[in-house]
Amino acid sequence: MPIITLTTDFGPDSPYVAAMKGVILSIQRGAASMPTQKQPSHAPIAGSGGTGEGLSDGLIVDVTHSVPPQDIRAGALVLADTCRWFPAGTIHIVVVDPGVGTDRRVLCVNADHQLIVGPDNGVLAPAVRDAASIDAYEITEPRYRLPEVSNTFHGRDIMAPAAAHLSLGVAPMDLGPPVDDWVRLELPEPVVHAGWIEGKVLFVDSFGNLISNIKADVLAAVFGDLDKAGVNVTVTCGPHVVPGLVRAYADATHHATAALIGSSGRLEIAVVNGNASKQLALTEGAAVIVQSTV
Amino acid sequence: MPIITLTTDFGPDSPYVAAMKGVILSIQRGAASMPTQKQPSHAPIAGSGGTGEGLSDGLIVDVTHSVPPQDIRAGALVLADTCRWFPAGTIHIVVVDPGVGTDRRVLCVNADHQLIVGPDNGVLAPAVRDAASIDAYEITEPRYRLPEVSNTFHGRDIMAPAAAHLSLGVAPMDLGPPVDDWVRLELPEPVVHAGWIEGKVLFVDSFGNLISNIKADVLAAVFGDLDKAGVNVTVTCGPHVVPGLVRAYADATHHATAALIGSSGRLEIAVVNGNASKQLALTEGAAVIVQSTV
Amino acid sequence: MPIITLTTDFGPDSPYVAAMKGVILSIQRGAASMPTQKQPSHAPIAGSGGTGEGLSDGLIVDVTHSVPPQDIRAGALVLADTCRWFPAGTIHIVVVDPGVGTDRRVLCVNADHQLIVGPDNGVLAPAVRDAASIDAYEITEPRYRLPEVSNTFHGRDIMAPAAAHLSLGVAPMDLGPPVDDWVRLELPEPVVHAGWIEGKVLFVDSFGNLISNIKADVLAAVFGDLDKAGVNVTVTCGPHVVPGLVRAYADATHHATAALIGSSGRLEIAVVNGNASKQLALTEGAAVIVQSTV
Repeated sequence: MPIITLTTDFGPDSPYVAAMKGVILSIQRGAASMPTQKQPSHAPIAGSGGTGEGLSDGLIVDVTHSVPPQDIRAGALVLADTCRWFPAGTIHIVVVDPGVGTDRRVLCVNADHQLIVGPDNGVLAPAVRDAASIDAYEITEPRYRLPEVSNTFHGRDIMAPAAAHLSLGVAPMDLGPPVDDWVRLELPEPVVHAGWIEGKVLFVDSFGNLISNIKADVLAAVFGDLDKAGVNVTVTCGPHVVPGLVRAYADATHHATAALIGSSGRLEIAVVNGNASKQLALTEGAAVIVQSTV
Repeated sequence: MPIITLTTDFGPDSPYVAAMKGVILSIQRGAASMPTQKQPSHAPIAGSGGTGEGLSDGLIVDVTHSVPPQDIRAGALVLADTCRWFPAGTIHIVVVDPGVGTDRRVLCVNADHQLIVGPDNGVLAPAVRDAASIDAYEITEPRYRLPEVSNTFHGRDIMAPAAAHLSLGVAPMDLGPPVDDWVRLELPEPVVHAGWIEGKVLFVDSFGNLISNIKADVLAAVFGDLDKAGVNVTVTCGPHVVPGLVRAYADATHHATAALIGSSGRLEIAVVNGNASKQLALTEGAAVIVQSTV
Repeated sequence: MPIITLTTDFGPDSPYVAAMKGVILSIQRGAASMPTQKQPSHAPIAGSGGTGEGLSDGLIVDVTHSVPPQDIRAGALVLADTCRWFPAGTIHIVVVDPGVGTDRRVLCVNADHQLIVGPDNGVLAPAVRDAASIDAYEITEPRYRLPEVSNTFHGRDIMAPAAAHLSLGVAPMDLGPPVDDWVRLELPEPVVHAGWIEGKVLFVDSFGNLISNIKADVLAAVFGDLDKAGVNVTVTCGPHVVPGLVRAYADATHHATAALIGSSGRLEIAVVNGNASKQLALTEGAAVIVQSTV
């Protein structure tokens, strides 16, 4: 049974997440044996209430529910950075959906065997950008939704049921018509000059580290061996000048501002044992410049 | 194996939740093969330490651990709104328990095949209110508790073990004597007048939306077709007058105050892309009036 | 399949936790059948991408991700208090790792059949202190790491893979060379005088309760039957004098300061329906004195 992951802006510990899990598990336990049976009053899910004999539950993994409310860009980045660690065949649901209840579409995208289910507002785009093969479908088939679809919670009423049915073997193309004009999301790319790079802070992680759009391979292409770059480059973030890269947080002085290649393979600016975003008063969008040390 | 859910006021990410999960899993893995064996020193659970051959773990799903500390009413509402999404046979543990260690009882209620385990302080009542068949038992049987019961943490020492044994096939009636005078919890009902409804804010969700006690069916009974009600009714919440209902958050103007039927089927007041509770300075108990637009 | 638990300082709901879970699940689903196969581009884990036929996933349980950032002592205490509730054979990962990327070692400690994986900075020590048999190994074997190990996230690149391979049957001694000089962590012990005890607040729980280092058995040794101690002892915490112990929170007056034996078996100071740490302005390290009431 494939893993299903959840990325939302519902806030940590929201009971709305639990409602989505209840829907997924109800369908996984019952839909295979009686997909069209009328549901009993105490189990308002199409096909639920079965004993699920012979079926095992799929795993459901929370990615995060702390995407800032309705911040499509932040949700898209978290999804893109996290989904690649999961095995092929994993189904990722992302609910950052300010347009819920309007005519924006709900999609299932199959990108190199990672399936992503979410609204067509750009939040899916970064996760599939580098895929070799992509096909996308609009989720329209009533059989694979809840019998009643609200105007306010498509995560529970459309996305969770679609993911549950995918986990039971329904093919993406069975969910609805193919789509190829899904909404793209342009993220700022660093500008590479002769001998220097001009980037930006993409997001702030939970430690307050400033994560930039400058990846390790771009740095290496301009400055050569990164372990040597420590003494060869200067990083400027907003008004703050950081001399050199360190290899690890612990290589920097306590409470010093440090620049390093972080765990997502991107250049980041950190305050050791502190919170760079708060202490430097910088956030998403701040300029990050890397140049040779003179 | 039935699903077990957890609803508590321990705070997000509390290690006390993990202790409860450890107890449940220890019993599920070991109790069936050796329920009365003395536990080894490194596994302080009756019957744990087994290899659990042939047994699979049950799923444990967190509903929320962010119930405001010792707020029985808030816990009761979250449980009632969430448990109906889970398949029949699910076991719901709710620990909002200011009376822990006193002589208040711990109950297992079987309401239309949803099993609910928690203290007898009213927190169970809303979840079972509409059940066609209800039977309740006090959990007293020492075999189905931890060998040592503290005065401060019955979630771990009584409720988690009872739920684990239920998941292994123990019947609710085996946990202790039947009870029919469990504590009810009265929630304010809306008052329906000729042509207008007088309700209240029941709770504030994690987006700051003000969720009222006025359900969609009550609205429809007074005002007719809700999609048309958008132009026919005026909603007053505290001192704020909202003209009409919208179908979805996105149908309202950015940062406007909007009224709509939310995902729990209740009338709610929201600030689009904002936080209604903070921005309107309203919370639980605020008056919500719906009347015809003149 | 053994349970794997996670204790980190990543913050609640961090996507870095999800990356660790993705790594564990990828290895559990694929490594057994093809441990050395080159990974496909969409599944960057050694040996992942398999269909995992015949394998079931292990359970992954979050203990907490709210350890204060880089607070080794707080992480050590949470782990020690929680891990004993899990069945023998459970694998506990703890990532509180300010020295990541330096030459500090990563260990697997087997203490009475609880396996603990984490950095060698003292965070493992309290959890294994009372074990009858302990053996420890440095995790050095490249086969049981990710192919690329970052300098900033050994939780994902070394600890998660090691735990996943342990769950699949790899023995601790296969992970690397034995170690017996791992870093100990001394916690303050209470001082027992003739007729009185001098202790300290070890940590503050999520309700604001002040949890001391004075355990129930030490109290009983000095003052006798604890149920009678309620009238026989006076507890002083910082400048606050609490007359007697109560058996349970509910036995104290609303908003009174109370002393009692808490759920971890330790003397704690609580404000009923309040937050003792905030209201008494006391935290970790505050003195706790227990003496006979004159």
